[in-house]
Amino acid sequence: MTLDHDLDAVLEEVAEIARPVAAEGQIADYIPSLAEADADKFGLALVEMDGTEHATGDADEPFAIQSISKVFSLVLAMQKAEAGRGIGEELWQRVGVEPSGDPFNSLVQLEHEEGKPRNPMINAGALVIDDVLVEHCDDPAAELKALLTELAREEIGVDEQVAKQEEDTGHRNRAMAHLIRSFGNLNNRVQPVLDAYVNQCAMAMTARQLARAIRFLANDGVEPDSGKRILSDGAAQRVAAIMFTCGTYDSAGQFAFDVGIPCKSGVAGGIVGAIDGEGGVCVWSPPLEQSGNSIAGHRALMELSERLDLSRV
Amino acid sequence: MTLDHDLDAVLEEVAEIARPVAAEGQIADYIPSLAEADADKFGLALVEMDGTEHATGDADEPFAIQSISKVFSLVLAMQKAEAGRGIGEELWQRVGVEPSGDPFNSLVQLEHEEGKPRNPMINAGALVIDDVLVEHCDDPAAELKALLTELAREEIGVDEQVAKQEEDTGHRNRAMAHLIRSFGNLNNRVQPVLDAYVNQCAMAMTARQLARAIRFLANDGVEPDSGKRILSDGAAQRVAAIMFTCGTYDSAGQFAFDVGIPCKSGVAGGIVGAIDGEGGVCVWSPPLEQSGNSIAGHRALMELSERLDLSRV
Amino acid sequence: MTLDHDLDAVLEEVAEIARPVAAEGQIADYIPSLAEADADKFGLALVEMDGTEHATGDADEPFAIQSISKVFSLVLAMQKAEAGRGIGEELWQRVGVEPSGDPFNSLVQLEHEEGKPRNPMINAGALVIDDVLVEHCDDPAAELKALLTELAREEIGVDEQVAKQEEDTGHRNRAMAHLIRSFGNLNNRVQPVLDAYVNQCAMAMTARQLARAIRFLANDGVEPDSGKRILSDGAAQRVAAIMFTCGTYDSAGQFAFDVGIPCKSGVAGGIVGAIDGEGGVCVWSPPLEQSGNSIAGHRALMELSERLDLSRV
Amino acid sequence: MTLDHDLDAVLEEVAEIARPVAAEGQIADYIPSLAEADADKFGLALVEMDGTEHATGDADEPFAIQSISKVFSLVLAMQKAEAGRGIGEELWQRVGVEPSGDPFNSLVQLEHEEGKPRNPMINAGALVIDDVLVEHCDDPAAELKALLTELAREEIGVDEQVAKQEEDTGHRNRAMAHLIRSFGNLNNRVQPVLDAYVNQCAMAMTARQLARAIRFLANDGVEPDSGKRILSDGAAQRVAAIMFTCGTYDSAGQFAFDVGIPCKSGVAGGIVGAIDGEGGVCVWSPPLEQSGNSIAGHRALMELSERLDLSRV
Repeated sequence: MTLDHDLDAVLEEVAEIARPVAAEGQIADYIPSLAEADADKFGLALVEMDGTEHATGDADEPFAIQSISKVFSLVLAMQKAEAGRGIGEELWQRVGVEPSGDPFNSLVQLEHEEGKPRNPMINAGALVIDDVLVEHCDDPAAELKALLTELAREEIGVDEQVAKQEEDTGHRNRAMAHLIRSFGNLNNRVQPVLDAYVNQCAMAMTARQLARAIRFLANDGVEPDSGKRILSDGAAQRVAAIMFTCGTYDSAGQFAFDVGIPCKSGVAGGIVGAIDGEGGVCVWSPPLEQSGNSIAGHRALMELSERLDLSRV
Repeated sequence: MTLDHDLDAVLEEVAEIARPVAAEGQIADYIPSLAEADADKFGLALVEMDGTEHATGDADEPFAIQSISKVFSLVLAMQKAEAGRGIGEELWQRVGVEPSGDPFNSLVQLEHEEGKPRNPMINAGALVIDDVLVEHCDDPAAELKALLTELAREEIGVDEQVAKQEEDTGHRNRAMAHLIRSFGNLNNRVQPVLDAYVNQCAMAMTARQLARAIRFLANDGVEPDSGKRILSDGAAQRVAAIMFTCGTYDSAGQFAFDVGIPCKSGVAGGIVGAIDGEGGVCVWSPPLEQSGNSIAGHRALMELSERLDLSRV
Repeated sequence: MTLDHDLDAVLEEVAEIARPVAAEGQIADYIPSLAEADADKFGLALVEMDGTEHATGDADEPFAIQSISKVFSLVLAMQKAEAGRGIGEELWQRVGVEPSGDPFNSLVQLEHEEGKPRNPMINAGALVIDDVLVEHCDDPAAELKALLTELAREEIGVDEQVAKQEEDTGHRNRAMAHLIRSFGNLNNRVQPVLDAYVNQCAMAMTARQLARAIRFLANDGVEPDSGKRILSDGAAQRVAAIMFTCGTYDSAGQFAFDVGIPCKSGVAGGIVGAIDGEGGVCVWSPPLEQSGNSIAGHRALMELSERLDLSRV
Repeated sequence: MTLDHDLDAVLEEVAEIARPVAAEGQIADYIPSLAEADADKFGLALVEMDGTEHATGDADEPFAIQSISKVFSLVLAMQKAEAGRGIGEELWQRVGVEPSGDPFNSLVQLEHEEGKPRNPMINAGALVIDDVLVEHCDDPAAELKALLTELAREEIGVDEQVAKQEEDTGHRNRAMAHLIRSFGNLNNRVQPVLDAYVNQCAMAMTARQLARAIRFLANDGVEPDSGKRILSDGAAQRVAAIMFTCGTYDSAGQFAFDVGIPCKSGVAGGIVGAIDGEGGVCVWSPPLEQSGNSIAGHRALMELSERLDLSRV
């Protein structure tokens, strides 16, 4: 086993180094509930494949998972695909798997490439995935919450304030959805797709829960506690590969070097990572670097990767 | 007087040359009522400042004015501005006066320049103008129709089929409106703004009516029959200047050379032009050239300009 | 006659208003000889078609004409075309006539549109024109100087310092030339084309000379003093139309409104304008506005246009 | 040990599946020597860390390594950096580590981001690396050849025909170099930088040699046969990370999923990959897929990855 260290000590050490870095970041201010976030919060959790948990700081305080949800909505869409409900290869006709080179909420690429988003980790791609969910789920929000609860091994919550505010302010996402629909790459009306999107962003989880929940991706698609298969091995690998090259906005290359494992970040300051064969990790600290990832979170994962030799590239 | 020719004969001659060119164009097909247009229709009208009218072909058949309406909605917004209702210079903070270099429905420039459209003759700019109208008119559609009726010297109609279909299919415009709103450059909700936009595009006028209606721009802002001032001299000149550099999509430079007067085209095949000090002209023929202007209309105006020495540059 | 004013008094009045505006501008600093320009210089000249001259300030001090030369190199290329040497319509296959919507030295449009510059008033387009000159002139620099001398009615000079420095620092133009050549739209080697370009930019003329030299464009292509035809009427009109829509960088729309006549500006602070049927005008003041036109020059032409009712749109 | 299979049998099986896929690709035709390549060539080699070699097909026929050289020129630049000659962190100020989202030879990003290439695996980035080499090497071509020879464990050659032709036709790269220089991100004259670039692209190696040569990146920076340290562990990991996210043009995401190891491709049809802790692999087949990678090579690596469970994400 690789994680052959005094993990609790390593986490403390990493937290001590990373926490002060938060002072150099900026809290996202485009929705009020984010703007009011406490910049001093810092949580770090690592959950091993056998269920052993390590955590420090505010690892048990829930936060809005925001874009981290894109991993799980993709998983849900792929589950539907694997269940043979006709959204298999067709899914990859509608959304690509390449890094975008543009900001996460850009419409430029979408216009140039006629409504096909570059990947499912940017907003445009997540909207197409939600369109799939709207088509194949009776209640996408409920099904996603159920999946997250199953993977987190306990009931998860919703940040109602985030849900409400995103709905009020999400003109950019609405623009994106209409643009995609104008190119014929959205099968449902825009409203239910946006509802699904807003809902998934508002799911509230703790760093510990997310570290638990991501483990199946590092376990060939099988939830390690229950032994239940969530995705086929191949599908799990695809999700991990997409996280690796597209999961941290315009810093995917930097993360590949600094951390070297598949990661996905959210604008509320969470970053989750899957450690192949070993377990899951999640860090939370609200202030962000320029490209939209938690600045202290990035540093924490870098320090952790170095100490535990996590990088696989 | 410059228009010192046998104008009826000139119009016939021009029509004979231009009409066959329609065969090289394409009818816009993005909404069904346009797709069903009769490619053989061709109307040409020239109305002198003193009210003398010359017309040939289908000059008395109404068609949807589409983007030609952008001239008149801008005029209405500037009327409100001149009436001291606080939308004067502020208007030019919200929309530019420069050619865009991009297609008429592009969102790229809008994203790069943070929601400020390049000019009021492209869709994005027209939406901002409509936002002004929604704010300052009790019923923008009714006021615009009243203005057009006043300028056309007779009641004008509405193509209800166009209005209905635009509403169903206008995801691109809706995307644009939400994108503009996301940058804070739309003060009203998107729906009434889009309603105003769809309505103005569906106004139905004949070539003769449009040739009459545009004359005030060539008459220092004064409607020549009634002597009523529509705009100040300066405001009229600004509208004409914007038409000149931005009125014919990506062919403004070509029109400056070929025609040399301020023109505005619409996707249903109409093109209207203001002849400084002389009168108004309008041509209608549905098939379009690549950049979205009537192909036979472009040719007709070019032949007319050559014969009547219209160019002022 | 329109210019029916006490023109000397008008020029003084305009100069008094415009001169102080220079303080709000910035002098171009990318080549040293420009950076060292005297920000207080201000010259204004208007030459009537009958040869009557009006001037104020530093109207007899030579400056590098820079991009104003693009008008005259285009004229020379069209002369060659009209002489039936096989560069007629083919020229407009190689360079467009539309405003670019991008900065004057951008390579973006060039890459997207496969090496065909949008118009001959931006650097890329001027390079293609120079490629034509290299092909059809024994000595492009000498022929252009001869043309300018003929039009200016006296020998003109060359700013050797500018010529030398442009050559040293022109990596952006060299990049552009190689990019154009990579798309097959440059027939000659890059070096002689760049030599021709650098040479034309370094031609040194006074405001009075430029005001004289531009008159033929406002006189249907005929040099008014000698009565010699420089271009056909149609070709002269095309050049004027291109100046109108593309001659002042990203402010062509603003100039259309503010000034309303075909203008061309240069980075050393000169702006020349052709007044249809009346004469030529030129203003010089080094500090520039954001889009690269002389800020006091822009203001001077605006005030002049208002006083003399120059606008034709 | 992971590579615990009958590797010779696996290679044969993979070759049999991948070879016919070449028929769906296109040979690069922008330089004649590439256009004349034999589309039926197919070589595959895998070299274990202990030196055991497995190969099939044309694995001993040399081909121009083209863009694969970008990995090794980067290694040479980092060696110089590690030797404390002052090009350490400064290097990453001059070139990024993020996927570009644009084609490999695009100038658009370069203009928008003021001359800083997105990564060293695209042409623009490689030119900046060559600028470093020109500054720090007496003879960049000779030093690179020496490095490749050291890593390949035998003398390697140069395809003189490729070298000659690239020089004649490389206007796009020359444009790029001048554009970078115009932004001040090239310290040397353009010619020696381009010479270095052309030279590195023309290095000729066999699939077997490349499979050997890449092993040090999978061995923490140490050449496994000689035990000689080529790069520090951290530097080797950075190179591998950049290959992973940027090494296969616009298909990096697809490769992350299909293959899951750091790869770098070249336009002559070679693709090299580093298998962490295990060895190196190289495949060669000239016909390319749309994004510029060998189509049969891509397939071969995908099949190999599946059979040997190579993916680490």
